[in-house]
Amino acid sequence: MIAPTYGDVLSAATRIAPFVHRTPIFTSTHLDELVEANVFLKAENLQKVGAFKARGATNAVLSLSDEQAGRGVVTHSSGNHGQALAYAAAIRGIPATIVMPHDAPQVKVQAVSGYGAEIVFCSHDEREVTLRTLQERTGAVIVHPFDDPAVIAGQGTATLELVEQAPDLDVIVAPIGGGGLLSGASLVGEHEHVDVIGAEPEVVDDAYRSLRDGARYPATGAISVGDGLLTGIGALAFEILSAASRRILLVSEEEMLSAMRLIAVRTKLLIEPSSAAAIAAIIRYRVDFSGKRIGVIISGGNVELGRLSDSGDRR
Amino acid sequence: MIAPTYGDVLSAATRIAPFVHRTPIFTSTHLDELVEANVFLKAENLQKVGAFKARGATNAVLSLSDEQAGRGVVTHSSGNHGQALAYAAAIRGIPATIVMPHDAPQVKVQAVSGYGAEIVFCSHDEREVTLRTLQERTGAVIVHPFDDPAVIAGQGTATLELVEQAPDLDVIVAPIGGGGLLSGASLVGEHEHVDVIGAEPEVVDDAYRSLRDGARYPATGAISVGDGLLTGIGALAFEILSAASRRILLVSEEEMLSAMRLIAVRTKLLIEPSSAAAIAAIIRYRVDFSGKRIGVIISGGNVELGRLSDSGDRR
Repeated sequence: MIAPTYGDVLSAATRIAPFVHRTPIFTSTHLDELVEANVFLKAENLQKVGAFKARGATNAVLSLSDEQAGRGVVTHSSGNHGQALAYAAAIRGIPATIVMPHDAPQVKVQAVSGYGAEIVFCSHDEREVTLRTLQERTGAVIVHPFDDPAVIAGQGTATLELVEQAPDLDVIVAPIGGGGLLSGASLVGEHEHVDVIGAEPEVVDDAYRSLRDGARYPATGAISVGDGLLTGIGALAFEILSAASRRILLVSEEEMLSAMRLIAVRTKLLIEPSSAAAIAAIIRYRVDFSGKRIGVIISGGNVELGRLSDSGDRR
Repeated sequence: MIAPTYGDVLSAATRIAPFVHRTPIFTSTHLDELVEANVFLKAENLQKVGAFKARGATNAVLSLSDEQAGRGVVTHSSGNHGQALAYAAAIRGIPATIVMPHDAPQVKVQAVSGYGAEIVFCSHDEREVTLRTLQERTGAVIVHPFDDPAVIAGQGTATLELVEQAPDLDVIVAPIGGGGLLSGASLVGEHEHVDVIGAEPEVVDDAYRSLRDGARYPATGAISVGDGLLTGIGALAFEILSAASRRILLVSEEEMLSAMRLIAVRTKLLIEPSSAAAIAAIIRYRVDFSGKRIGVIISGGNVELGRLSDSGDRR
């Protein structure tokens, strides 16, 4: 695989524009006062399927040749990427199969099937095997959630919009799981001369350690409320983020939950705990961000509502 | 008191425009499918102070003569109107005193004092007396939360924007407590030939019975999750809504909580249970709304986050 470029992000933006929202920017006086900075929130929780993932999946599906597209697409996902790929396949009118764990939340299962995708259930351990078997049998194209140049280029379009909507940013902060979103942001940040920083839960700090040590570590296997950030950093993301010497800020579980609640109370926006990692980072390390113009990518809004209750640990 | 007119709403719009948000419209494919209609949500939860109340209070304060304004403003409120009046007074640079119950939520107390208003605490029973005493001592102008022509005209500006942003509506639905919001909507609806319907919790159905029977009943005294809707319908609101033969739809507590959660999950917007009454009404009575273009005023977003948990009855 060849890493995508800024030019690929521009092409992706043109390609996916008819099918994704140009999400709005939100600001909060309270957050600005807390960080002593100007914070611009790119509300990808208001994106199609409730997350930036719609961008990458749509770009990947629309980039397929007619021959490839005719064979359909397949992925495994219990999260936003499954919905995003089902959505993208529906746009192009091609079959999609999503491999999901037996215990996937009913709301996610319904969302995927609502887009007309086929669902194949299996255990967590069997998902790679199930995916490969399906791929071999049907010839469908596997669309990886992040380790794919077209997916990364698609995710980069969120940052492309952000720098247009909020000019003269000093820094952009986004959460990192597999690294698709942050890699896309990094490509745009490089071109625009804006610093780009990742935010990651302390308990799943593989990206932090990988970029610090220059060696790609696997996922920790730990669980975090930032359930979109459990996966290890991908090979392409590691290549892109290492080359740009990007750094990662770590945040605690409680800081993420607090940040999620702060955003809900102050902006009336529902954001995922994964998204809240980026908010938590600028609050925790506010000394470093003071006086700056900060763009934060709110990656998604698909959260179990019980997470918003004050204790935050009920489920 | 003389009831305000459509012209007063137009004047209010010009007067308050620099100080309030022109809030956006949200739509939800899921909600449209559920009601089999086109629903346009006017997101006043994204308004200053998190509720439409900023409009009425700002119009009232900016409508005062210099002599009146110099004496300051006063009201009693444990809810959004207190914040709104504190905000409006800060705009004009005049003193505001808000009478609040001892047990008012800390977040509301902080919000009011954050705008520089003075807070006087008292018991629920003493609040009228405390208000009058304050008014007599300081000569401050009492700004009523809804039974005031300038307040009603200000609330009407939300509907004025809605009919501009979502043309050709068949009907507008808004919650009713004291009736300021619905009265303002009614004035605009009359001019635009759009039907206007109120939504009220079954347990506090005084507005429903008042408009049905042509006699103004007092508040039931019951408690509802729609905590902004507990108050009885005001005299001016009764006059305006009776004259226009407006009707009210009743909804249950569980329907409001479900609607609040549906909006959170589907639009990523946090809305108050009071706002959810209007959503619940179009869902419950969807047979009557089928095929229509419906404007719904999301009155506010100031909600205790625990309300969003699945059971909804934890606090």
